[in-house]
Amino acid sequence: MTDLYQTGHTAPAFILHTPQLGENIGAAARVMGNFGLPELVVLDPRDGWPNDKAITMSAGSPVLDNARVEYRLTDATHDFTRLYATTARPRGMEKPVLTARQAVAEMRAAIAAGERVGVMFGGEKSGLPNEAVTMADAIITLPVDRSFSSLNLAQAIAVIAYEWKAEEAPPAEFEPVSDIAKREDLERMFEHFEYELERAGFFYPPSKTPLMVQNLRNAFIRGRWTEQEVRTFRGAVKALALGRGKARVVRED
Amino acid sequence: MTDLYQTGHTAPAFILHTPQLGENIGAAARVMGNFGLPELVVLDPRDGWPNDKAITMSAGSPVLDNARVEYRLTDATHDFTRLYATTARPRGMEKPVLTARQAVAEMRAAIAAGERVGVMFGGEKSGLPNEAVTMADAIITLPVDRSFSSLNLAQAIAVIAYEWKAEEAPPAEFEPVSDIAKREDLERMFEHFEYELERAGFFYPPSKTPLMVQNLRNAFIRGRWTEQEVRTFRGAVKALALGRGKARVVRED
Repeated sequence: MTDLYQTGHTAPAFILHTPQLGENIGAAARVMGNFGLPELVVLDPRDGWPNDKAITMSAGSPVLDNARVEYRLTDATHDFTRLYATTARPRGMEKPVLTARQAVAEMRAAIAAGERVGVMFGGEKSGLPNEAVTMADAIITLPVDRSFSSLNLAQAIAVIAYEWKAEEAPPAEFEPVSDIAKREDLERMFEHFEYELERAGFFYPPSKTPLMVQNLRNAFIRGRWTEQEVRTFRGAVKALALGRGKARVVRED
Repeated sequence: MTDLYQTGHTAPAFILHTPQLGENIGAAARVMGNFGLPELVVLDPRDGWPNDKAITMSAGSPVLDNARVEYRLTDATHDFTRLYATTARPRGMEKPVLTARQAVAEMRAAIAAGERVGVMFGGEKSGLPNEAVTMADAIITLPVDRSFSSLNLAQAIAVIAYEWKAEEAPPAEFEPVSDIAKREDLERMFEHFEYELERAGFFYPPSKTPLMVQNLRNAFIRGRWTEQEVRTFRGAVKALALGRGKARVVRED
């Protein structure tokens, strides 16, 4: 992750405006680290700095070590060319209001064009002051239930941090490793299975056989079985057929 | 919000598999309430039930009051037709691996078709056991930085809860109320402004006037001013022009 902290500004910075609880600052630093957002600015934290609870909750996130602490809004925002204000309350200002998704799309284009982008989050008690919202290019508001809208500060930060990466595909190590069976292997498996079902008297009445075969084959096909799964199932069919033969022998004694 | 809890299953349920900290269960219930997800199932919470810390952290979320607590995985999942397993670790299983966004799109279609959908989240210490992942139709994995991937449980829940609503447009009360100025109003404002600038000797050399006018008009046009803003600015230009006149008078005394 070190490289993130040495390269230029390839992601938006998050600016926490007068946060109260160290826990939330630490949780913010942790989730920013999770989603690859290296730059945190803390404006006038109520409980001073450094803050033990922030350190604990950050779970070792390098974002906290690299955080910049400022005491005036103008110092916190001075080198940004584009600012977003997060708010759950309409402010009656003439300013674009965006979903997080729309805002992230804008940020990505702006950063690619060389802009410095910051996202401001207000403190726990009353959110961003109008003074800060005024300096923003646009408002971001999250799709909360109007009747239960009070989102925890660290959760709001988690959501925007996630949105920054939301289009990223799962990493390669999540890809299945086995080969999907070819139709030829499935055909042999079906023939084997149906042969043993036939021998066991499963297809009755005979006129329904084509439909029963069709339904069974469809159910298997939907599973997109691997070569290994086909081998395992053929072994299972063989065991059942042989087992049944043995059981019948026992009962016939 | 009550109606959410009385209607059918119009959203995925979240199933917390053996969570340890009441704080995380409460934070989960809070953020589920924020994003309109009414149905929480808690499987075998380590610290018993009810849990005071869960109650405190839920901030009064009705999702906590309505939570169903179970003690066996089969009881927690018995009436779902589609299950998702969230995991940060590849399991080497043959199972689709989706981003949260892809999974939510699937869930939405499945719920519209009458399915009952659940999303499973593992406990803080080791995540979902393979037994639970096996019963899932697909895996959801979040786009975390591989070198700092440990996401707080409540944050993971916040992200999926948010994703459920991420396409929702900001509510109407966020829409700007004022009318954007018509070109006619802007034209008059420009003429007024340029007239006063001309009087003040701003346009020099005269050959550059057209370009200076063009640049100023472009800067104003980009702001998409409202009728009120146009009126305010014209007042400001008038005040400056008059004020200058007055100041000049004073100096000329």
